[in-house]
Amino acid sequence: MDYAAESLKRHQQWKGKIEIRATVPVKTREELAVAYTPGVAAPCMEIFKDTTRSYDLTRRHNLCLVVTDGTAVLGLGDIGPEAGMPVMEGKCVLFKEFGEVDAFPICIRSKNVDEIVNTVSLIAGSFGGINLEDISAPRCFEIERKLKEKCDIPVFHDDQHGTAIVTLAGLKNALKVVDKRKEQAKVIINGAGAAAIAIAKLLLNDGFRELILCDRLGALYRGRSDMNTVKERIAGMTNRENRKGILKEVIKGADIFIGVSGPDVLTKDMVESMNERAVIFACANPIPEISPEEATAGGAAVVATGRSDYPNQINNVLAFPGIFRGAFDVRAREINEPMKIAAAEALASLIQEEELCAEYIIPHAFDRRVGKAVAAAVAAAARQSGAALL
Amino acid sequence: MDYAAESLKRHQQWKGKIEIRATVPVKTREELAVAYTPGVAAPCMEIFKDTTRSYDLTRRHNLCLVVTDGTAVLGLGDIGPEAGMPVMEGKCVLFKEFGEVDAFPICIRSKNVDEIVNTVSLIAGSFGGINLEDISAPRCFEIERKLKEKCDIPVFHDDQHGTAIVTLAGLKNALKVVDKRKEQAKVIINGAGAAAIAIAKLLLNDGFRELILCDRLGALYRGRSDMNTVKERIAGMTNRENRKGILKEVIKGADIFIGVSGPDVLTKDMVESMNERAVIFACANPIPEISPEEATAGGAAVVATGRSDYPNQINNVLAFPGIFRGAFDVRAREINEPMKIAAAEALASLIQEEELCAEYIIPHAFDRRVGKAVAAAVAAAARQSGAALL
Repeated sequence: MDYAAESLKRHQQWKGKIEIRATVPVKTREELAVAYTPGVAAPCMEIFKDTTRSYDLTRRHNLCLVVTDGTAVLGLGDIGPEAGMPVMEGKCVLFKEFGEVDAFPICIRSKNVDEIVNTVSLIAGSFGGINLEDISAPRCFEIERKLKEKCDIPVFHDDQHGTAIVTLAGLKNALKVVDKRKEQAKVIINGAGAAAIAIAKLLLNDGFRELILCDRLGALYRGRSDMNTVKERIAGMTNRENRKGILKEVIKGADIFIGVSGPDVLTKDMVESMNERAVIFACANPIPEISPEEATAGGAAVVATGRSDYPNQINNVLAFPGIFRGAFDVRAREINEPMKIAAAEALASLIQEEELCAEYIIPHAFDRRVGKAVAAAVAAAARQSGAALL
Repeated sequence: MDYAAESLKRHQQWKGKIEIRATVPVKTREELAVAYTPGVAAPCMEIFKDTTRSYDLTRRHNLCLVVTDGTAVLGLGDIGPEAGMPVMEGKCVLFKEFGEVDAFPICIRSKNVDEIVNTVSLIAGSFGGINLEDISAPRCFEIERKLKEKCDIPVFHDDQHGTAIVTLAGLKNALKVVDKRKEQAKVIINGAGAAAIAIAKLLLNDGFRELILCDRLGALYRGRSDMNTVKERIAGMTNRENRKGILKEVIKGADIFIGVSGPDVLTKDMVESMNERAVIFACANPIPEISPEEATAGGAAVVATGRSDYPNQINNVLAFPGIFRGAFDVRAREINEPMKIAAAEALASLIQEEELCAEYIIPHAFDRRVGKAVAAAVAAAARQSGAALL
């Protein structure tokens, strides 16, 4: 199917993919007086006396803001706030269908970090959580950090943390398939954008130790002169031997390749230069860093991509709906590292030992167990880590 | 029924009065690829090339922002943004049920005019229209004016214009009942807040000529020393004979009293001092300026209130759903005076000559013809006045 043509046609018919529905009756005078004036003054005054009651008396407890500035929409780049909306509406559809979370999309007409932070924080009292989306790096890091400081509700940048969680889940099972341990596994992450850095941090927090990130100029290492602050910081946390060189050089002897970069940057030769039973996550979309066929021909034992037409799809929809579902269920005030790792472990655990194999390391996007399993694990981790208010 | 107790109980069960629903299927891999990635890139790029296509390809064409800062919620005053939410959600319920408009509530955590204007204008690209709500005067005037300058979508402050439209509709029919003409009718508007000033302006634009506004200190007149800019401006447009004095004095010989003030400020004696066949709109809620029984005893020929348990309820729900429905149907870029007057005329016209009487000058809130009639009239007026883009 020509998805582009079909999608455009459908979007013209749909004229929007979400709607706001009333969930209470206002068909009679009495009903109107209860749902609206004069009766509504009573719940208003309850919230006035205690703001936290907004979680009991309005939709806030289940409402997630999906917000972008349109600067990094899919692989399309900076196409502006209005043009980002079809993606944001789609995201809200997934939130509802996969996590029973009410999500509402807003695209902000500004690229200024402080203006975006100020706008979101001023409307945050109407929501229970904030999902940042398709905001370009390195601005996304600063926006996320500042919003976390300003807001008392969970702030989650899905392009970073959702990707990292699903990647970690897949890696956990891939390592079982190839019988290697995370503490020894040598990991090359190709890409140094938002997703790459989030993956690196989550892997480190989960116990991985041997990571090297590569950008277009090669490995990030301490002392490299052309790096921005974000890259400097992650270089300081990875590449323990401070290796230099381009991807082709540093990948030699690696156990795992994680691509969050661009099409066709990994060759069969490079895969051949890796350790035995190599694991390849080629997540660039729609064209991966290497085709699964070539990766296998190069000797890879496990291959995952971002595509739905190959086995082992690394798809964020496995994570974000359940994560917010779990966070909302216990009114978590943040989505912290233990909650992210718990989500990855829950995802990985859905595949039983006897069904685990090279072609099945991560649940399918439509596996109906996923949302509930992730939510339960996230809620439990929120409680254990002290982030849960319920 | 004790509406307060019942409402609080229900709100605790409801936990919110609106939800976000997905209107497109994502049950299969193919459906996901059409509604979301990779297909969704196609509608995104269409909007990138031409921003107005956001009206065809997203929900924007039917989406109204209901926004407050929580400073003048119902009669409760400044109870803050979170506490205003039950009213805002209720408003969104009415938008959907009475006008098939998708409305989403946002409460802003700021009382600063420019900060509110900036926040709303930065998110305006995600909506097709903006309904301001429960913002205190005189800030509401400045916020509305600045937003109209900054935004290319309709901006409507319902507490002003919705109230004015329904009042004008009722007055048109009341004048028929008492057989008087608007050009000669002497009108006293008691109150000098947002609603009072909007009513005065709309009446003037519709051809009324003899208006006097009163605040707590009496009539507004040119040269009165204690008035703010807003009052000075409206004093310059009304009170042609520049009469002075308190309500009790200036009401003598008046034909119409419109109260948008507080409880029990109008006495039977004052009604008796008015002209024959006086018209009383006592709209303070829940306790009117005078009870209908007393007004009638004082000789009033027609009495309207804001209450649903008396005849002739002046209720904004008669206006705002149809107004936005009509504006959205023709993609009006504003809601201008001709559109407001057309809405009032459509409302008044729903009552046939043979059914028109002192107890029935305005349609009931649940009259199912109202939304469509108002919408059609507003759309037609938008076309005639050049405000319609479709």
